[in-house]
Amino acid sequence: MAALRVGTRAVEGRFQASNGGGGGGGGMAPSSRLVAAHREAKPRSSHSAAPWKLPRRRGGAMPLWRVAVFASVALNVATLALLLHHYATSPPHHYHDAGLTTRSSDAAAHRRARTASSMAPSTGKPAVTTDSVINLDHGDPTMFEEFWRETGDAAEVVIPGWQTMSYFSDVTNVCWFLEPELDRQVRRLHRVVGNAAVDGYHVLVGTGSTQLFMAALYALAPDHSAAAAGDAGEPISVVSTAPYYSSYPAVTDFLRSGLFRWAGDADAFGGDSYIELVCSPNNPDGAIREAVLDSKTGNGRTVHDLAYYWPQYTPITKRAAHDIMLFTVSKSTGHAGTRIGWALVKDRAIARKMTKFVELNTIGVSKDSQMRAAKVLAAVSDGYERRPEQTKETKTATPPRLFDFGRRKMVERWSMLRAAVAASGIFSLPEETSGFCNFTKVTAATNPGMI
Amino acid sequence: MAALRVGTRAVEGRFQASNGGGGGGGGMAPSSRLVAAHREAKPRSSHSAAPWKLPRRRGGAMPLWRVAVFASVALNVATLALLLHHYATSPPHHYHDAGLTTRSSDAAAHRRARTASSMAPSTGKPAVTTDSVINLDHGDPTMFEEFWRETGDAAEVVIPGWQTMSYFSDVTNVCWFLEPELDRQVRRLHRVVGNAAVDGYHVLVGTGSTQLFMAALYALAPDHSAAAAGDAGEPISVVSTAPYYSSYPAVTDFLRSGLFRWAGDADAFGGDSYIELVCSPNNPDGAIREAVLDSKTGNGRTVHDLAYYWPQYTPITKRAAHDIMLFTVSKSTGHAGTRIGWALVKDRAIARKMTKFVELNTIGVSKDSQMRAAKVLAAVSDGYERRPEQTKETKTATPPRLFDFGRRKMVERWSMLRAAVAASGIFSLPEETSGFCNFTKVTAATNPGMI
Repeated sequence: MAALRVGTRAVEGRFQASNGGGGGGGGMAPSSRLVAAHREAKPRSSHSAAPWKLPRRRGGAMPLWRVAVFASVALNVATLALLLHHYATSPPHHYHDAGLTTRSSDAAAHRRARTASSMAPSTGKPAVTTDSVINLDHGDPTMFEEFWRETGDAAEVVIPGWQTMSYFSDVTNVCWFLEPELDRQVRRLHRVVGNAAVDGYHVLVGTGSTQLFMAALYALAPDHSAAAAGDAGEPISVVSTAPYYSSYPAVTDFLRSGLFRWAGDADAFGGDSYIELVCSPNNPDGAIREAVLDSKTGNGRTVHDLAYYWPQYTPITKRAAHDIMLFTVSKSTGHAGTRIGWALVKDRAIARKMTKFVELNTIGVSKDSQMRAAKVLAAVSDGYERRPEQTKETKTATPPRLFDFGRRKMVERWSMLRAAVAASGIFSLPEETSGFCNFTKVTAATNPGMI
Repeated sequence: MAALRVGTRAVEGRFQASNGGGGGGGGMAPSSRLVAAHREAKPRSSHSAAPWKLPRRRGGAMPLWRVAVFASVALNVATLALLLHHYATSPPHHYHDAGLTTRSSDAAAHRRARTASSMAPSTGKPAVTTDSVINLDHGDPTMFEEFWRETGDAAEVVIPGWQTMSYFSDVTNVCWFLEPELDRQVRRLHRVVGNAAVDGYHVLVGTGSTQLFMAALYALAPDHSAAAAGDAGEPISVVSTAPYYSSYPAVTDFLRSGLFRWAGDADAFGGDSYIELVCSPNNPDGAIREAVLDSKTGNGRTVHDLAYYWPQYTPITKRAAHDIMLFTVSKSTGHAGTRIGWALVKDRAIARKMTKFVELNTIGVSKDSQMRAAKVLAAVSDGYERRPEQTKETKTATPPRLFDFGRRKMVERWSMLRAAVAASGIFSLPEETSGFCNFTKVTAATNPGMI
């Protein structure tokens, strides 16, 4: 998706023009619609103009822009080819048959058939055809669907009608709406992968990591409670090194909060009081990032968005241990539709304020999706932690391994892209970087998330 | 919950005092924690002080305050009694056994057992014991769990690991992340009950109705896009006739939006540009409400919160057909943990802006919970629409009927409360009102939601 984001950010102006009068933008991407949506509300606001100021401010940006547009086209051509293949081999409407033929008992088949027939879910975007128009605009992790079809019941959840009706999950936890099983599986997976420290951290759940991103801004913004009427005190500046994920400015400013405000490129920021967003691997360019600002007054805070810090996208070179780290199942396992993200937070007071945000915003997070995410994360860990009972239940000797599958797909797509780019001769791509992965124990290339 | 809300609102100052330093308030109620959370952020802001200005402004408010405190105590005593009974008869930890004994096949039993063991969900708040401290503070719809245990598989969902992974549900719909099946079942239930018009309305889904409440404020606030930097233009006033739901001011102001700001009691509002929140039946007092403001400049908007406009709480006297109507499964079916709310919106442009809010805020809504909510709403409609295939599958001749069950419970609890109030002799309750219900075809009393 990172590469697609390049396209998104680089050409968002044009998309806004073509989508401005669109029908709700159903066919548009989450990320770019964030921008489009926002521009519709206030097209001349400072932050949405930022991407356009960028080139003028930084000489090196124009080549990147051209590369971005062409790269996006190439990436999407490659994606479409893969999707065509994907849809041809596993069309969503085969679900009912599959459900029935794999049933091992009439009763189960009966219930499954009834469930399937009455609950046939949407299948996401329509299948790609030769008539499809290339959309530079969005990513959607359907790439992983093939893997999860192979896992069978391992990641299936059954939820009785009377289950998890309460608002509460664990009244003893700072995050009182976090399902204990999700807490366990999040910590377990991070220990298995070694990409983030969990001991001494609070696990918070959000409706996708976007909600936790807003929660972090809310929690880190200075508390002006001493001021009357709540108007005093300038909003804190939110910055990130360019090129940054196009939804950061949109999500920061769409409600015009008096607590925080988008201030653009961290490299060009002069102040000393700020919230710096560090996205690593970075969306859109996949670069490994570190914080670039250092507050002398101690009024600087950082939020690390590690959505792509998983073995299928980049070598796991160290166990991250920052104050606030954000993750999401959309990028780690491909379950974007469950809208489950999580944050690892060191400080209890910050964790409590972030929890308050989610509570004020949505009074908690879907328990159904939390249970499903826990099951999915467990299946991923099981693939690498061979446990006795697991071996019995699994049909194959080696259980399906998500990160191996994901890396194969990414390598496949990037080689197609690099071939397309080389053939064109018109433009270039960033050089391939690699490093030793502590998880796979081999030196691996970086494959920016293109899903 | 309404009655509990009286307690919440009336004593929130005290709760704030006792909870200010609490540990994240795990044991606190959504609604009152909204207030507590907000006050922690800016205790002297105008809106959170509103409840205290109220008594000074309106002479009749003090008696209400006393009634409220005592009523809450009585209500919770009654609630505790019922909960004790409820937990004694159906303790959550019986789930595994139940799951196994009701299986109709080994395979299913095996899968269910595995699912249950690996996915045992939280059971919400700990069971009430004789040592339990009375909490005036929160409501939780566990009252309905008993009903859903009786429905068996009718409201059960099975979600394979590969299902609904995409961000998108229906790219042709204004609300592109709404599952078509939920759209169908929402319209079907409103037609069955006759409490709201659906023809010519857009159905939008949210992470609980709270998110849609914020979405409505975002969509109805004036568009200051013509102004530079997006700072110009005063935030629009958000008002509601007192006594109002304590979370309205908290949710409106916690981000200090430049788009909208809480302005207190609608009856005391002098302006002509506003968003009036009409909660009917009203939380906290169960009163049937109409909009009280009438804008001469046409800059007044209304949002109708009809969370409690269901047959178990009040007679369905007419088919509501307002511009924006909010509903939630938390109050209609008791599934608070799924966090699914919906809005019926007449205007397409407003529906599109509300959709944009949800997209910017959480990039859609859990598909798993949407599928579950669709299944649950379908089970409720099935209870009143006898369909052939339904009759075959249902064990009893008459399928379980949610609203009948709910009304019995409410009548039971209110009679206990009125008895307790009469016995005390210290205070009084609003007189019982009643009306002819177009749904049940009988004259029924109003039973403000106490769940």
